[in-house]
Amino acid sequence: MSEQVQLVPNNSLITKTPEEGRQLAVKMARLIIKVTQPDAAVREKLRPVYAEDAAMLIAIGQTVATEFATIAAANNYWR
Amino acid sequence: MSEQVQLVPNNSLITKTPEEGRQLAVKMARLIIKVTQPDAAVREKLRPVYAEDAAMLIAIGQTVATEFATIAAANNYWR
Amino acid sequence: MSEQVQLVPNNSLITKTPEEGRQLAVKMARLIIKVTQPDAAVREKLRPVYAEDAAMLIAIGQTVATEFATIAAANNYWR
Amino acid sequence: MSEQVQLVPNNSLITKTPEEGRQLAVKMARLIIKVTQPDAAVREKLRPVYAEDAAMLIAIGQTVATEFATIAAANNYWR
Amino acid sequence: MSEQVQLVPNNSLITKTPEEGRQLAVKMARLIIKVTQPDAAVREKLRPVYAEDAAMLIAIGQTVATEFATIAAANNYWR
Amino acid sequence: MSEQVQLVPNNSLITKTPEEGRQLAVKMARLIIKVTQPDAAVREKLRPVYAEDAAMLIAIGQTVATEFATIAAANNYWR
Repeated sequence: MSEQVQLVPNNSLITKTPEEGRQLAVKMARLIIKVTQPDAAVREKLRPVYAEDAAMLIAIGQTVATEFATIAAANNYWR
Repeated sequence: MSEQVQLVPNNSLITKTPEEGRQLAVKMARLIIKVTQPDAAVREKLRPVYAEDAAMLIAIGQTVATEFATIAAANNYWR
Repeated sequence: MSEQVQLVPNNSLITKTPEEGRQLAVKMARLIIKVTQPDAAVREKLRPVYAEDAAMLIAIGQTVATEFATIAAANNYWR
Repeated sequence: MSEQVQLVPNNSLITKTPEEGRQLAVKMARLIIKVTQPDAAVREKLRPVYAEDAAMLIAIGQTVATEFATIAAANNYWR
Repeated sequence: MSEQVQLVPNNSLITKTPEEGRQLAVKMARLIIKVTQPDAAVREKLRPVYAEDAAMLIAIGQTVATEFATIAAANNYWR
Repeated sequence: MSEQVQLVPNNSLITKTPEEGRQLAVKMARLIIKVTQPDAAVREKLRPVYAEDAAMLIAIGQTVATEFATIAAANNYWR
């Protein structure tokens, strides 16, 4: 069932701008959490846990940075 | 015995689409957990532990992001 | 609502110098925290938590290093 | 004494297939643990600790993913 | 005010040798801590905390390794 | 004073073999710990702490993997 979550919006890493690439990185990171915890009620309950925890906010930043590195390379860094 | 787990489905990093590449990243991450903890009963017991823990969900996202970076490069980012 | 935070200042990874690239890395890391925790009052409360915690300061350094790797590649390392 | 552990099996990163590359990544990750903790009895004692701890299983996955990225690049991704 | 800390010494990633590149990686990692915690007295207080904590020393090593990867690429690995 | 620790043995990332490259990665990781905690007595005291802690052994593996990625790239993966 979890396989039915779309993991890459639009099925492409190519975006028009860095800003859109960054938004894609955020979405892709969130979709992995969704596929690992498919129950929306549990995810809702966990949201304030990480959003009010400094260490977890930093860890989310690390994950987004890693996703973004891939997306930026895919787009030749929008040079 | 753990050596008998297939670690790379289809023995290839090449996929048709980013979406399939992302699914492969998720599977490869899970297979490392399987080879490290071959006992299915223990893995079953651990699943709710990480699926309801915000910090662990974020850490899973970090691992998938790293696997995906390799798969995306292998596929020339599906440009 | 969180979608309205601009995630990449100037919508570009290109900077004139390494110093500006490094400042961009710091800003981009902070903006991910902002988009994940849009409430400025909560962020204000969390600031002393991480700024006085050695482990979190190190973790922030790790995130900035990852963002900077992408920005440096985008700029051909300002060679 | 720890210097006598062979850290890279066959002294090569080149493998025939992705599957073998993945197995090499797992072995190389384990050999670093061996060289850091050369006492086999201590390692035996630690095995159930990490194999039954969700957070550590995820962390092992992160390390293997990083090793695999290098091996995959060495093999031009077995394209 | 924190913006006035110089984040990249000499505003360049180019160094004469790997040794100097490594020193630059250490400095750049420390400067991110400085910009995040500009109060020198607090940083002084935190120093013994991480310098006597095995986990934090390892984490610092991880951050320096990431910074060094960028600097080494910038210098074509001093080949 | 900590500046006097040599951070890159032989001041080069180039090695004859993957095995030597791996040993260099281990040494470079340890030298960062040495430069951060220059007191040999404290380092001696910390050694059993991380060598008997599963989570820290894994974290050391992560750092070595990151150092090795750079060294392997510097050597064109010893292809």
